[in-house]
Amino acid sequence: MAGRLIALLTDYGYKDPYAGVMKGVIKAINPEAEIVDLTHGISRQDVLEGALALLAARGYFPAGTIFVAVVDPGVGGRRRAVVVETTNYYLVGPDNGVLSLLAEADGIRRAFDVSNSRYRLPAVSGTFHGRDVFAPIAAWISRGVRPEELGVEVDPSSLARLDIGNAEVEGGALRGAIIYVDAYGNLMTNIPARLAKSAGIEVGDQLFVRLQDGRRFECSFVESFSWVRPGELACYENSWGYVELAIFMGNAAEALGLGRGARVEIRRAGKKSPDDEDGRGGVGG
Amino acid sequence: MAGRLIALLTDYGYKDPYAGVMKGVIKAINPEAEIVDLTHGISRQDVLEGALALLAARGYFPAGTIFVAVVDPGVGGRRRAVVVETTNYYLVGPDNGVLSLLAEADGIRRAFDVSNSRYRLPAVSGTFHGRDVFAPIAAWISRGVRPEELGVEVDPSSLARLDIGNAEVEGGALRGAIIYVDAYGNLMTNIPARLAKSAGIEVGDQLFVRLQDGRRFECSFVESFSWVRPGELACYENSWGYVELAIFMGNAAEALGLGRGARVEIRRAGKKSPDDEDGRGGVGG
Amino acid sequence: MAGRLIALLTDYGYKDPYAGVMKGVIKAINPEAEIVDLTHGISRQDVLEGALALLAARGYFPAGTIFVAVVDPGVGGRRRAVVVETTNYYLVGPDNGVLSLLAEADGIRRAFDVSNSRYRLPAVSGTFHGRDVFAPIAAWISRGVRPEELGVEVDPSSLARLDIGNAEVEGGALRGAIIYVDAYGNLMTNIPARLAKSAGIEVGDQLFVRLQDGRRFECSFVESFSWVRPGELACYENSWGYVELAIFMGNAAEALGLGRGARVEIRRAGKKSPDDEDGRGGVGG
Repeated sequence: MAGRLIALLTDYGYKDPYAGVMKGVIKAINPEAEIVDLTHGISRQDVLEGALALLAARGYFPAGTIFVAVVDPGVGGRRRAVVVETTNYYLVGPDNGVLSLLAEADGIRRAFDVSNSRYRLPAVSGTFHGRDVFAPIAAWISRGVRPEELGVEVDPSSLARLDIGNAEVEGGALRGAIIYVDAYGNLMTNIPARLAKSAGIEVGDQLFVRLQDGRRFECSFVESFSWVRPGELACYENSWGYVELAIFMGNAAEALGLGRGARVEIRRAGKKSPDDEDGRGGVGG
Repeated sequence: MAGRLIALLTDYGYKDPYAGVMKGVIKAINPEAEIVDLTHGISRQDVLEGALALLAARGYFPAGTIFVAVVDPGVGGRRRAVVVETTNYYLVGPDNGVLSLLAEADGIRRAFDVSNSRYRLPAVSGTFHGRDVFAPIAAWISRGVRPEELGVEVDPSSLARLDIGNAEVEGGALRGAIIYVDAYGNLMTNIPARLAKSAGIEVGDQLFVRLQDGRRFECSFVESFSWVRPGELACYENSWGYVELAIFMGNAAEALGLGRGARVEIRRAGKKSPDDEDGRGGVGG
Repeated sequence: MAGRLIALLTDYGYKDPYAGVMKGVIKAINPEAEIVDLTHGISRQDVLEGALALLAARGYFPAGTIFVAVVDPGVGGRRRAVVVETTNYYLVGPDNGVLSLLAEADGIRRAFDVSNSRYRLPAVSGTFHGRDVFAPIAAWISRGVRPEELGVEVDPSSLARLDIGNAEVEGGALRGAIIYVDAYGNLMTNIPARLAKSAGIEVGDQLFVRLQDGRRFECSFVESFSWVRPGELACYENSWGYVELAIFMGNAAEALGLGRGARVEIRRAGKKSPDDEDGRGGVGG
C-alpha cells in the first residue's frame, strides 16, 4: 500500500525552481504528503545515471514509498508516462528506462500507462511533465488512488529497459565497465561484488586492474579506505554492492582519465600473467 | 488564511549552512511548519532572476503558502523588509522587487513594512536577515499571526517593482529580450506566449529569429522537443507561459553566445523579408 | 529530550543520491522524523569546514534537534562513531572533530561510542556509514532511544577536537587567520567579534588590514554592507559572531587571492604605524 512519502529524483539541478515547483504541486494535491529529495543533480538527460541513482535507494526507503524519477529527454513526445508497482514501491516517471533498474531489482508487480491520466494537471505543458504529469500522479497515489484508476494496465515486458552491460568472469579475470562516476570521482563498475567473490577475489587480495588502453595498475581489494594511504588506488565493494575503484582522498576519474563506458579487467595478482609486471606502483600518489 | 507550508527561495547556494539555518529558525518558532525549498541556487544578488523563479511557483503551490524570498544585496541598509498578502499567498522578503512579479501576478491585497517588527529574532545581524528577520516572520505567519500584527501597513504602490521590459508586436514581428537563462541553457524571453498567438504565430509555424547582432536563424514553433532533432533550435511556449528558445539536447545560451538582456525578434517565416535568406540551417548541429 | 527534528550536514554533495538515501533510512526507522538539510555542500572531506558550518546552527535550531554530521575521510577505519549529548542537542557523527565545535560551544553533557551499536543497519558497508550507522542512530534517538542504550559512555575529554587557532590582541592589533570562506567569497576569521571590541574596535572605525604577504588595506568596521560601496572592502561582525572581511558585491577570496589559513592583522587606523601609509584605497573597485 502506498505511504505518504514521496522521493524525488530529477536532472533539474539546483539553480532553477523546477524541482521546487513539483513540491508545490504535490502539497496542493495532498497536504499530508511528505517529500524528500533523493537528488536533483543527475547529469542533464542522463537516463542511465538517473536509473542507477534511483537503484541506490532500494532497500533503504520504507515500503510504500512513491518514487518520482524525471530524467526525460523525450518529454512531450511519444514515450509513455508510467506507474510501476513493485514489491515495495511505486515508481512514477517516463517510460525510458529511468525506472527500470529499481523496478527490476525490486520486482515488478504491475505497470500502468498514465500518459493520458485524468489525474494530470488541467493544463499540460510540452516541456515540464515533472510538474504537470508526474508530480500530480505521485500525489494522488499518496492520497490512496490506486494505480488502476490512474491509467491503463500494460504488460511489464513492454517497459523500456536499460542495458548496463554484462560483467563476466573468464580465466579468473573479471571483465566489466565503468557505469557510474560519483562526485568524488569514484568509479563504479557493472561488476557485482558477488561475481568477484565467485571468481575467488576476497578482501585483502592484491589485484591487477587493466584498462582498455592497456594501462595496468596494482591495488588491493579492501573493505574500506582505512586500508590504504591517501593517493593510493583501492578496489572494493561499494555501497550499491558493485566493484568500485577509487583513489583515497583523490579523484580516480580525473587521475586515470576514465569515465563511464571505460572497460576494466580485474584479476588477482596471485594469478598474474607475465606482462603485468610493469603495473606496480601507485596512482596519483 | 495562512497555511503551515513555507517555501524558501534564496541566493545562498548549497555550500554554506545559511539556508539550513533559516529552517532551524522556522522550526524553533513553529514546530508544525512544513518547509520546502523552491531553490537556493539563484545567481548571487540577482534580484530579477529570483523574482522570475518565484513567479514560476504561481498557481502550483497551495493557497495559503508563505513564500520567503531572500535575494538581498541591500541587507542591513534602508530597504524595507515587507510582507505582501496576495490573493493566494503571503510573500516575505526585502522590498527590492524580488517579490514583485509574483505579487503583481497573483494580485496584491495588502502590504506591510516589517522592518522593525517585534517578531524578529532578539538579535538582528547586519548581514543575515534571512535568519534574523524573514524566517521568523514567515514562521509566525504560519502560526497564525496576522500581517497587521507584524508591522505597519503601507501603500502597495510604494513597493519596489521590477521592469522585465516590454515585448511588442510590430509589423508581424515579435520583439523582446531574454530575461532568464535556465541551467539547461534555455533562453526565456519576456514575450508572453499569448502575444505570439495574437501575432498569428501558431504551433507548427516556421519562424525567423533575428538576434540584435544581426544573426538570423530559422526554427519551428513547437509544442515540445519531440518535434525537433538533437542539436536543432526550437521555439515554444515554456512552462511559465513565455516564448523560449532552446536547442534540443544542447545548450542554446552557450551555442548562441546569448545571455540575459539580449534582444530578439521573431516572425513567421511565411512573412519573411528578402534579407532573411541566409538564416537557414541548424544551430549547434 | 530528543525531538523528532533531524538536521543533516554532509560533504556528499548534490549529484549523488547519498544524502537522499540517508533520508530513506531515517524515515524507514521513524516515519514521524522530520528531516532538514543543513547543507550537503561541505568541501570534500574538509572536517574543519563541516565543523564550522555545524557551529552556525547553534542557537537557531530548536532544543532537542538531532544533528547528523558526516564528513568522514576515516570511514571504515578506527575512528569511532559517537553520539554527543550537549546542553540543547544530540550530535551524531564520526569522532574526528566535525562535531567538536558545536559540542563545545553548546556544552557537552555526555558522550557515547556507538561504533558497534546494535542500532546500526544489519549490513554495514565499509564506505557509507552515513547510511549504515549515523542515519539509523539519529532515527532511533528521534524515536526515544536514550544514548546510553546506543553504545558505551566515554569520557568527553577523549573526543577528537579541532584547533581553529588562537586569535590574539597585541599592541592594539588583532591577529588571527581566515578559517572559513563562504560561497560569496567572504573571509571569516577566527577572531571573535568580542575580542575586536575588547581591543577598542567599534562600528564606524577605520581599520588597517595587513595580510601575511605584507599587503595592507584600509577599510571600515561596518554594521552591514549598506555602509560601503560596491567593490569596496568591508570588515564586520559576521552572523557567526566572528570578524569577517568581504567585498560588497564582489568576491574577496578571489580579489585578494586569500584562502583558509591566511593570517591577517587588523588594527584601528587611528593607531596606525608609519609604514601603513601605502595601504589606502579600495580593493577590487
